[in-house]
Amino acid sequence: QSTLNFGDSPHTRVNILTGEKVLVSPHRSKRPWQGQVEDLPGDNRPAYDPQCYLCPTNKRADGDINPDYKESFVFVNDFSALLKDTSQQEFNEDELFIAETEKGICKVIAFTPRHDLTLPEMEQAAIKAVVDLWQKEFEELSKVEWIRYIQIFENKGAIMGCSNPHPHGQIWSQNHLPVEIQKECVQQKRYFDKYQRTLLADYINAELRKEERIIDENDSFVSLVPFWAAWPYEAMIVSKRPVQNIAAFNEKEKEDFAAILKLLTTRYDNLFKTSFPYSAGMHQAPVNEGDHPEWHWHMHFYPPLLRSATVKKFMVGYEMLANPQRDITPEIAAEQLRNCATIHYKSK
Amino acid sequence: QSTLNFGDSPHTRVNILTGEKVLVSPHRSKRPWQGQVEDLPGDNRPAYDPQCYLCPTNKRADGDINPDYKESFVFVNDFSALLKDTSQQEFNEDELFIAETEKGICKVIAFTPRHDLTLPEMEQAAIKAVVDLWQKEFEELSKVEWIRYIQIFENKGAIMGCSNPHPHGQIWSQNHLPVEIQKECVQQKRYFDKYQRTLLADYINAELRKEERIIDENDSFVSLVPFWAAWPYEAMIVSKRPVQNIAAFNEKEKEDFAAILKLLTTRYDNLFKTSFPYSAGMHQAPVNEGDHPEWHWHMHFYPPLLRSATVKKFMVGYEMLANPQRDITPEIAAEQLRNCATIHYKSK
Ligand SMILES: O=P(O)(O)O[C@H]1O[C@H](CO)[C@@H](O)[C@H](O)[C@H]1O
Ligand SMILES: O=P(O)(O)O[C@H]1O[C@H](CO)[C@@H](O)[C@H](O)[C@H]1O
Repeated sequence: QSTLNFGDSPHTRVNILTGEKVLVSPHRSKRPWQGQVEDLPGDNRPAYDPQCYLCPTNKRADGDINPDYKESFVFVNDFSALLKDTSQQEFNEDELFIAETEKGICKVIAFTPRHDLTLPEMEQAAIKAVVDLWQKEFEELSKVEWIRYIQIFENKGAIMGCSNPHPHGQIWSQNHLPVEIQKECVQQKRYFDKYQRTLLADYINAELRKEERIIDENDSFVSLVPFWAAWPYEAMIVSKRPVQNIAAFNEKEKEDFAAILKLLTTRYDNLFKTSFPYSAGMHQAPVNEGDHPEWHWHMHFYPPLLRSATVKKFMVGYEMLANPQRDITPEIAAEQLRNCATIHYKSK
Repeated sequence: QSTLNFGDSPHTRVNILTGEKVLVSPHRSKRPWQGQVEDLPGDNRPAYDPQCYLCPTNKRADGDINPDYKESFVFVNDFSALLKDTSQQEFNEDELFIAETEKGICKVIAFTPRHDLTLPEMEQAAIKAVVDLWQKEFEELSKVEWIRYIQIFENKGAIMGCSNPHPHGQIWSQNHLPVEIQKECVQQKRYFDKYQRTLLADYINAELRKEERIIDENDSFVSLVPFWAAWPYEAMIVSKRPVQNIAAFNEKEKEDFAAILKLLTTRYDNLFKTSFPYSAGMHQAPVNEGDHPEWHWHMHFYPPLLRSATVKKFMVGYEMLANPQRDITPEIAAEQLRNCATIHYKSK
């Protein structure tokens, strides 16, 4: 069953999606922690908060009034990092100073009118409505001919820079490929050219045989802790069908995606009995530049917590300067997540 | 004078040391912040703390007693992420599961016996003693024939995962090149092969002409905010002489390094009148694998703060999944640091 017999030995594993290594130090989880402890997230939010710029009928920074929406609601970010009217300019001085303008559209998606919920606490039907909206937004943005890449993501929890606890995500789309996508393009194309199968199709099939790192599986998706996970409880949801993007999901797949998303985020919350923080987002093929049969839709979850609801993993010094590093193994993390209940700890 | 006239336009800049882009959104610094606020670091540490495992004469986790050291003190990390007796093993299953054991030595350096100081608060002569020790440790570790790379670094501040405020740094050395070093190898070699000059020699000369991003300069070093800085107040110290590693520094250079290090860290503390957190570390040529004339010694500073002593930049969602992103420009950051006093705000 076991993929490695390095036992307690420090070792590196290759992230096949980026080609980059992560350092694993299994023996190091015994290290005592005397460092920074995070605040626990407040847990008594009202269903409606008159101060929240995401709640229905409230006023936003630009003066707009939110509609009295009943499911989910999307709008252009009032403080967008990318703007749609930026004109193309390039700059290259002696290969030392290289720059280029970047054009884009940034949107915000409120997942529900309820200020007091989070994805795992929402009904599966309500999560399915978010999936529908993600699909619709992806389809619409990919009709804008200058857009090359669409990043759908969520920052959950104050510790992950989320400045409003109202459940919401973002979509940043832009006219060039971001760095992490360029890496995944190269790695997936190399594999596909060689085997005429997607890298992730072969990878999840191998993981489904091994079972060691699998968290959940349904007809259309698998969730697992990847072999090369850098964050302690990093996870990935991968579609069984090798599709390039969310636009390709059929009704059944959207149902199954909502189901596995609810399961994974519920397990996360149950792990430390806290609203589990993370940054999560889908990686999908570039748009408006032809077919990308090598691309296989997947969603990454990068949660910062390590030991408890208040002690996180610090990706600092060595990690920033040299190499990402982790202590507990991906196999142990997967086992812990598998052992978590699938009913949310707050529901009775 | 100005390198770019993108004005307020979102744009990307290329990090010539890694080949990777960073997204700059100058117009976005006006965004109000309603998110997480950090605790202020406590400021009343005793000169000697009987509970501290780094103070002279105290007992450490492994039972060893620290000597009554007067300058600085180095020992093997009691919770090393890398171990020196790991045997070589490799693993590759179908190009999907790729792993390899990693062998190394991890050390801790206490910068001073004084529990209550930090680098900028130390006398320049005491910083020079730390530089001497870094050089000596580098020389000794590079005599271990299986070591290929030596990472000297410091995590400063609880917010950067530093679990003990006693001023100290670390050295992790290992038998393969870490990811970030591999990237810098490729980029520096490509440039050197083409021009027979180091990438950073040409880069700092251009920056010294432009002056826009320079913070300090002395006979042997320059400190600046790199054109491609990702963190708001990211900085780099670069040696004027293109040397491969710290072993090549002569007495005068070590004095000058201590001087510019004191200056930069003092400006940092003065910026927000706080003990400025950061992860910092030297990037140097690989060891025990021949000459690397393309390598040019430099030291990176990655500080997390953005707006004040308690509001940091979150490198989360979009940044983790797609591309590092910054709001204020490197030019504004450099100007602010240049305008900071060079006498520490706590000294009278
Ligand atoms: O070794 P320390 O100081 O206990 O630990 C700190 O630095 C290490 C090296 O950057 C990181 O791996 C840890 O996450 C961090 O908390
Ligand atoms: O857009 P928000 O939620 O205000 O901001 C948050 O997410 C962004 C995208 O990951 C980051 O750039 C910010 O640092 C973070 O605070």
